[in-house]
Amino acid sequence: MPAAPSAPADSDGPIFLKGHGTENDFVLLPDRADELDLTENRVRALCDRRAGLGGDGVIRVVPDADGGFFMDYRNADGSLAQMCGNGARLFARYMVDAGWAAPGRIPFRTRGGPRVAHVQTSGDVSIEMGPATLGVASRAAIGDAAFAGIAVDVGNPHLVCLDIGDRSTLAALDLSHAPEFDPQVFPDGVNIEFVTAQGPGEVAMRVHERGVGETRSCGTGTVAVAAATLAAAGRTQGRVLVNVPGGQVTVDIAPGTSMLTGPAVIVAQGRVEPQFWAAHR
Amino acid sequence: MPAAPSAPADSDGPIFLKGHGTENDFVLLPDRADELDLTENRVRALCDRRAGLGGDGVIRVVPDADGGFFMDYRNADGSLAQMCGNGARLFARYMVDAGWAAPGRIPFRTRGGPRVAHVQTSGDVSIEMGPATLGVASRAAIGDAAFAGIAVDVGNPHLVCLDIGDRSTLAALDLSHAPEFDPQVFPDGVNIEFVTAQGPGEVAMRVHERGVGETRSCGTGTVAVAAATLAAAGRTQGRVLVNVPGGQVTVDIAPGTSMLTGPAVIVAQGRVEPQFWAAHR
Repeated sequence: MPAAPSAPADSDGPIFLKGHGTENDFVLLPDRADELDLTENRVRALCDRRAGLGGDGVIRVVPDADGGFFMDYRNADGSLAQMCGNGARLFARYMVDAGWAAPGRIPFRTRGGPRVAHVQTSGDVSIEMGPATLGVASRAAIGDAAFAGIAVDVGNPHLVCLDIGDRSTLAALDLSHAPEFDPQVFPDGVNIEFVTAQGPGEVAMRVHERGVGETRSCGTGTVAVAAATLAAAGRTQGRVLVNVPGGQVTVDIAPGTSMLTGPAVIVAQGRVEPQFWAAHR
Repeated sequence: MPAAPSAPADSDGPIFLKGHGTENDFVLLPDRADELDLTENRVRALCDRRAGLGGDGVIRVVPDADGGFFMDYRNADGSLAQMCGNGARLFARYMVDAGWAAPGRIPFRTRGGPRVAHVQTSGDVSIEMGPATLGVASRAAIGDAAFAGIAVDVGNPHLVCLDIGDRSTLAALDLSHAPEFDPQVFPDGVNIEFVTAQGPGEVAMRVHERGVGETRSCGTGTVAVAAATLAAAGRTQGRVLVNVPGGQVTVDIAPGTSMLTGPAVIVAQGRVEPQFWAAHR
């Protein structure tokens, strides 16, 4: 990757924020002048949970030339990423708190396409997540236990297994390894959600993300679960409260689109040490 | 625990630093006026690796009335702790970097007793760790494999198993569970080090800390390993380079005392968010 021109913010050590959305956690790097040389090496160093700040990813917050904003999202391994619903809430919360955007409807760009956030001066943040499209019936398996599921596309592939038992059954699932799935249906792998009903319009889920493992939360996964939950009740729109291990979100499904609403928590902010930044060029 | 009187720094969100010593990582809270209300709940929240800043512990840096300093060290679970050699390097590095202490010899207090740091304007930091006292021969076991070892007391109990094989044997050890040991010899449990020689005066080790599991580094463990390594060569003093998974330290053993020298890396500094601090009272 070609190095960006060196810039003052680079040698000073950049401003950062650490925060999370339902315990999906991120290092945010506000980059008003679009001048940070954010190498793969630096992303990995920042996301290292013992030798760095720690995070599931890094989000560079960049103003666009047209007055909009770009969410430059990187995975913890340094690779470029498209979009993350939980990270987008944090991104949008920062822009309002920092005065970069007025509260209300905030369009922004991601590598997964344009998105829209809805942010007030405090409280939860909503992100328009696009359509959730139901697909074929399929199955997941953990050891000898098989679970009936349905494929749901939210820009990425999901396999949602509803009504897997009660809350204790859900808690007892061994997700330390990837569940088995049908590679004919999911040739590129799949994120697998296990779901139990909690009451009217409320579910609890756990998720195994492809290439990652079990996580505390998965934004697109909660949208997939809400769409499948409504479909199982013969509905194509409505609201579902989704409890994930890292907290609770609200998903609204409407024709052709979906809205994910949940917390965006800023834990701390400051500056990365210049020596640390320089050492991981 | 009685609440401390509320103070301005408390409601503002305290200043923090995040850093590590051979990847034993800590949240440092400079508390010049000794006014921070550092509850167990706040320690746990700060150390949470997804919902907080993340760390193996919190170190509050507090000036003493007599012009000295107190290292108020807490474990990640919120409990009070005595002392940590890797954390003490970070503590001492901060005091010099921040201008609280002049470079050179810096005495400080811990719950484990008085200690002395040696800090220059940059580079590695040395901590006087007190005596390492060799005890009886004993054994550790991992599954069917038994390892001859020797008890070493460094204020806390260690079982050092030397010459367990080559570097690949060391890397292959399964330390995901606690190795077995003789409870007659170690009624309060024990930290267990597995060691392989690397060359003249240099070893590599892995450590299983009691009540914690495998860690990237253990300050007292490196001192125990150095003392046992020298003793096996018929020596009571000398220098040993100790490679741990999180980096390298140098241990100097002398009659009645020991010195641990290694890196102290500040990653970032800033302020904890007032809302976060208030939410975890």
